[in-house]
Amino acid sequence: MFDTVLIANRGEIALRVARTCRELGLRTVAVHSTCDRDSAVVRLADESVQIGPPSARHSYLNVPAVIEAAVRTGAGAIHPGYGFLSEDADFAEVCESNGITFVGPPARVLRALGDKAAARAFMAAAGLPVQPGSTRALDSAVEAKRVADDIGYPVIVKAAAGGGGRGMAVVRDPREFTAVYRRTRAAARTAFDDGSVYVERFLDTARHVEVQVLCDAHGNGVALGERDCSVQRRHQKLIEESPAPHLPAELAERMAEAAVRGALAAGFVGAGTFEFLVGPDGEFTFMEVNCRIQVEHPVTEVTTGVDLVREQLLVAAGRPLGFTAADVVRRGVAVECRVNAEDPARGFAPAPGVLAEFEPPGGPFTRVDTHGRAGMRITPDYDSLLAKVITWAPDREQALARMRRALAEFRVSGKGISTTIPFLSEILDHPLFRDGAHSTSLVEQVLAARPA
Amino acid sequence: MFDTVLIANRGEIALRVARTCRELGLRTVAVHSTCDRDSAVVRLADESVQIGPPSARHSYLNVPAVIEAAVRTGAGAIHPGYGFLSEDADFAEVCESNGITFVGPPARVLRALGDKAAARAFMAAAGLPVQPGSTRALDSAVEAKRVADDIGYPVIVKAAAGGGGRGMAVVRDPREFTAVYRRTRAAARTAFDDGSVYVERFLDTARHVEVQVLCDAHGNGVALGERDCSVQRRHQKLIEESPAPHLPAELAERMAEAAVRGALAAGFVGAGTFEFLVGPDGEFTFMEVNCRIQVEHPVTEVTTGVDLVREQLLVAAGRPLGFTAADVVRRGVAVECRVNAEDPARGFAPAPGVLAEFEPPGGPFTRVDTHGRAGMRITPDYDSLLAKVITWAPDREQALARMRRALAEFRVSGKGISTTIPFLSEILDHPLFRDGAHSTSLVEQVLAARPA
Repeated sequence: MFDTVLIANRGEIALRVARTCRELGLRTVAVHSTCDRDSAVVRLADESVQIGPPSARHSYLNVPAVIEAAVRTGAGAIHPGYGFLSEDADFAEVCESNGITFVGPPARVLRALGDKAAARAFMAAAGLPVQPGSTRALDSAVEAKRVADDIGYPVIVKAAAGGGGRGMAVVRDPREFTAVYRRTRAAARTAFDDGSVYVERFLDTARHVEVQVLCDAHGNGVALGERDCSVQRRHQKLIEESPAPHLPAELAERMAEAAVRGALAAGFVGAGTFEFLVGPDGEFTFMEVNCRIQVEHPVTEVTTGVDLVREQLLVAAGRPLGFTAADVVRRGVAVECRVNAEDPARGFAPAPGVLAEFEPPGGPFTRVDTHGRAGMRITPDYDSLLAKVITWAPDREQALARMRRALAEFRVSGKGISTTIPFLSEILDHPLFRDGAHSTSLVEQVLAARPA
Repeated sequence: MFDTVLIANRGEIALRVARTCRELGLRTVAVHSTCDRDSAVVRLADESVQIGPPSARHSYLNVPAVIEAAVRTGAGAIHPGYGFLSEDADFAEVCESNGITFVGPPARVLRALGDKAAARAFMAAAGLPVQPGSTRALDSAVEAKRVADDIGYPVIVKAAAGGGGRGMAVVRDPREFTAVYRRTRAAARTAFDDGSVYVERFLDTARHVEVQVLCDAHGNGVALGERDCSVQRRHQKLIEESPAPHLPAELAERMAEAAVRGALAAGFVGAGTFEFLVGPDGEFTFMEVNCRIQVEHPVTEVTTGVDLVREQLLVAAGRPLGFTAADVVRRGVAVECRVNAEDPARGFAPAPGVLAEFEPPGGPFTRVDTHGRAGMRITPDYDSLLAKVITWAPDREQALARMRRALAEFRVSGKGISTTIPFLSEILDHPLFRDGAHSTSLVEQVLAARPA
């Protein structure tokens, strides 16, 4: 097994990966941009290498700099975290050709599943239910409009190369379709260097329910339960929980089975997430596969007792999975709130600044994944995630009470700093959320109901 | 149910109790000495009352001041934490006579079990195995010596009113018995206002294994698994874990059954701990009952998923236990290290000062119960517990690897400050501890083996 792991990421996930590496006795190398030189992961890692100035492109997306750092420090593996290079097939290939283990699925799997239109067609062929829509990218506006008209409105136009909730637009009025189609293509070309888009039926009152899978290189795969991530703003998750409230056990089982079947059919290796929609008819359809550790992975860890990063590393080293589906015992309910340095009163605009005060909550069954500390400068160069607060309890009502207590206890302030904590607390107190009866449109409903 | 709880304690346990109160929707009142006015629990509580200057006697043991604070703030219940007034039958009675719910066993139970010689006789009568020894306090040196000679040496002389590891002395040489007996009586008189002592056989290579019980006021009692607390220095626990390593399941079950039987026989209500020794013959004997929440309760919480403080509060409010023994599912292994502001190089002398730097560890399956924060002054007036670090994993080896990582990550420094972290790390790496093959004499062995 490799003895040194380079962590090609920043923020809370870099720190979280470093901790598990240390527990496995692995040496850690942190790479960092100039503005992250005093970050928590740099302080914790055995070695650190500066790879460039802020702007993701010059630092955490700078493939030659990352590879050079790995070669120079003797890193046998690279853990990419989430975002940045984590689902980049070319990067995985460069790692492979440099004899470095990429902690994630093989490049060919990343490539196949990274095209969301192709992934959709592949999973449909593997027997997974999908929403009515196109079976490939649609390069002609006329053809796309015909597909949309056939499906019936509303539809959603999605960038084939998109991910993490970016590159999507809903169309409710057929007359607006062509304009939205063109805008989405242009945006996708800018954001992902690839203007391919496809079209699917859009459900207004669906739940976002995803299944965590782990697969080894020997053909074994297990599901580790589902997560409900229906609390979203513009397809960005704000609150996640496991298990999904009110999800019938029989349906959860079929979804888990479908996810493992799809993963094995695709030759998946590592930790992945199958994202599904559960519609008002109570049936599920496949949306996409995320080929990385997810931001919301802690709710799965806390309920199953499995350290997902540990499993990623062991599987990447070629070890067979040490457990089967029968060994996975889920317990209680876990909830995660993402605390972002954003100002909900100004359209969730990033609210960077210096953290004068930063005291995360603690206490029983309360986990906080954060790289924050008092005195830290939050830059606008990277994403605004400041902390993830995860609470657990035997039942959902207690887990939510614990979350309310934890968020109320979180002290974070500083010049320019706003956080999503008050907004999260408002959602936690919303009757639909309390009852677990909300859909992916909850946040927009709450925002729309506000006095201007 | 009461709606306001006064927390008659300080430090990490006061904060921990306040958190659960808030989750239950209970208003909290913190009482504090002058030097604790900026403490974490004071900041978190809904209201706070200063009750006196440092020295426990003038503050956290000041019964009239505590009761007055409770009456003035309308507190319907007092949670005493551990230490201080937590096992004081007179205090429990004063609460009762003021119409305030004491969160703990009734005064008569505290009185009966607080006399350790009488508790020993009571539990022997209830069928629990005890070490050979006296069945009552021994007021005559001649009689005590006769009992010790009958048992055979080594013996241990224990203060009947002692607790928390204080008021005990081992005698190995019969010629020293009378001197030690007199010294222990005098020390007990000073410390506990009660010079009664009793004598038991002492086991050199025993394990300290204790069983957590919860009983309601309706005659229901459950055991929540055992904890091994064999890593002790002068009967003060340093490292605790659950389950006890290598303890046969059949023995653990018999111990759990004995603890519940003893508790119900005594009319116990609340959270309590039955402390046992497991001797080299593989059999257990009863030592004492602790009638309070224990410092080491988190290892039980983390493995069972039960919030013990929540259960204490619900049971104190008269609720029947919401679960039975069959509902208690234990998972994995939890370890706790007590981080004290003490200098192991100077005989574990308290090392107070100001915390210039205080960054506790975090990460998956890592819990830190602490009231510490940068800038805080640690006073020599109260005990030196700074933080409890609790790690969990599916097995003991991983839980210990996680603990090593967590302790290595803990940054704590300041003028005058020393902590037990390096010593704890040394114990964690000791081959006997790693194998789970240590006894209560491990720490003394390690200290004795050091160059002078």
